[in-house]
Amino acid sequence: MIIDIHGHYTTAPKALETWRNRQIAAVGQPASRPKPSELNISDDELRDSIETNQLRLMRERGLDLTVFSPRASFMAHHIGDFEVSSTWAAICNELCYRVSQLFPQHFIPAAMLPQSPGVDTASCIPELVKCVEEYGNVAINLNPDPSGGHWTSPPLSDRYWYPIYEKMVEYDIPAMIHVSTSCNACFHTTGAHYLNADTTAFMQCLTSDLFHDFPTLRFVIPHGGGAVPYHWGRFRGLAQEMKKPPLEEHLLDNIFFDTCVYHQPGINLLTEVIPVDNILFASEMIGAVRGIDPYTQHYFDDTKRYIEAADMHPEQRFKIYEGNARRVYPRLDAALTAQGR
Amino acid sequence: MIIDIHGHYTTAPKALETWRNRQIAAVGQPASRPKPSELNISDDELRDSIETNQLRLMRERGLDLTVFSPRASFMAHHIGDFEVSSTWAAICNELCYRVSQLFPQHFIPAAMLPQSPGVDTASCIPELVKCVEEYGNVAINLNPDPSGGHWTSPPLSDRYWYPIYEKMVEYDIPAMIHVSTSCNACFHTTGAHYLNADTTAFMQCLTSDLFHDFPTLRFVIPHGGGAVPYHWGRFRGLAQEMKKPPLEEHLLDNIFFDTCVYHQPGINLLTEVIPVDNILFASEMIGAVRGIDPYTQHYFDDTKRYIEAADMHPEQRFKIYEGNARRVYPRLDAALTAQGR
Repeated sequence: MIIDIHGHYTTAPKALETWRNRQIAAVGQPASRPKPSELNISDDELRDSIETNQLRLMRERGLDLTVFSPRASFMAHHIGDFEVSSTWAAICNELCYRVSQLFPQHFIPAAMLPQSPGVDTASCIPELVKCVEEYGNVAINLNPDPSGGHWTSPPLSDRYWYPIYEKMVEYDIPAMIHVSTSCNACFHTTGAHYLNADTTAFMQCLTSDLFHDFPTLRFVIPHGGGAVPYHWGRFRGLAQEMKKPPLEEHLLDNIFFDTCVYHQPGINLLTEVIPVDNILFASEMIGAVRGIDPYTQHYFDDTKRYIEAADMHPEQRFKIYEGNARRVYPRLDAALTAQGR
Repeated sequence: MIIDIHGHYTTAPKALETWRNRQIAAVGQPASRPKPSELNISDDELRDSIETNQLRLMRERGLDLTVFSPRASFMAHHIGDFEVSSTWAAICNELCYRVSQLFPQHFIPAAMLPQSPGVDTASCIPELVKCVEEYGNVAINLNPDPSGGHWTSPPLSDRYWYPIYEKMVEYDIPAMIHVSTSCNACFHTTGAHYLNADTTAFMQCLTSDLFHDFPTLRFVIPHGGGAVPYHWGRFRGLAQEMKKPPLEEHLLDNIFFDTCVYHQPGINLLTEVIPVDNILFASEMIGAVRGIDPYTQHYFDDTKRYIEAADMHPEQRFKIYEGNARRVYPRLDAALTAQGR
């Protein structure tokens, strides 16, 4: 089985965006906020948006299951206050849940949180609980910079984040560390902010003792870990300079990288440098890079091709495709087991 | 000849830091600012700080010449106002100039600029002119985020930066795009902020038409280009999505990467993915990562070993070691030619 642990609902029916635009227009004017009940998307519309897009490509590429979360760039936690984020997260999470119910063989949900800059992270817990207990979510996406490119929240090692970590540990769910749209003109969202956040999050963990406090906490760093594997020697050297244990010991029980690296040399480096137990298959399809690579005539984000072509044993490939995902996402494993898979 | 295009004066005599600390303590109290004349460092002290450090390692490693600029993390353009930055830049640039006079065979200077957040970049021109015309500097370091991790300046494509570009074009000198210390708790200086800035700068160029306005402008992106070569497929795909020309055509007449990547797989990827004409040898020694890699028993930052071990022809290695530097830094070439080298 091939599990893609990084898919977002980037193809939701237009009505969702229209509703969101109304919500954004009403920021600061609570009386004119649209009601969630004013958004109506039928099962047929959901089915169509998936079958013609993600599911079509999954079938073409031979992917079996996607861990599916709300569109990352649309989380936009910097917009409005906690109420705005809370309503928006509930709507987006419900849609992913409905997709998972319509296609239980192919999609399983991961939740976005109703984060809001400067707001106590304990405020995210009710949505998290609902998503895990009622919607069967197997993971969360955690935004380390809800300000959208201004980086005004404390580092991930700060106690500010602990309420979320405590709940993650209780439920035994991992978090993908994933920022949203940049509203800082310096940072292009998918070309700079995403990759910078991956590198930043890794370094925040490296310099801290977060995983002493939470030995079972697990973070998935997307986009192949940002700049981290390419600079693995730099990070090993910095850890050594700081008298930290070797990275394998210091971080790799808790940090995992996905395979969203869109060319063969990048995947080759990732799989050469990072222990195979820490690599999880993903494509982030349909996402930031939707075109066809003129060099290969295949989709840039068809990452399975790169894994197939990388130099490794079949057992290693199995770990990347399925084994590691079932270990890092125990609730995913339980759901699959319950399905007899 | 082996030219290291990325060296900082990280080993300056202690008196420099002491003077700087007095300057910082006096921020906001102009009357108590220390005078530059209160800093006294003898030629013997300079000689000693270089001979026992950079020059010793250059000899051990077989490096001939270093493009030498003030310590990047000490630029700290966010501290104080323009006057503070201006005095500090003048002092640091003078020291690098003196080192180049003491060791003309081994060091040639590159200048830091007296940048200050929000201040017109034209204010940097007098220092730049002095450094090129009087001190023989062959390049500048340009900080794309003088705020130190808050990213409050406009992107590099903005006209805010044009006064500097105009002078660079006039003098035909490149800029290394290099941030300084992060004062944002989210970003570790050398483990996150440096790499993020490299990626960010590249993407700012990619999304813009800066090199239409300045066809001969040249940027060196240090630290192996941040995350860029590892994600080369992503950047190619994003450029394609934006209807930009292929990256080779769109950016690679103007953007170059150094080899400050501290392990063999990273250098292998860099030299596989990026055209050889765009790679310049560098180590940033003595810098962020000073230790010995327990896997190889060699210094992490002994990047010459990785270049030697990478799969390439001798002519390609010549370009990386010398040929490209002489092309991208014409004033370096002229200085070497004048020395009969």
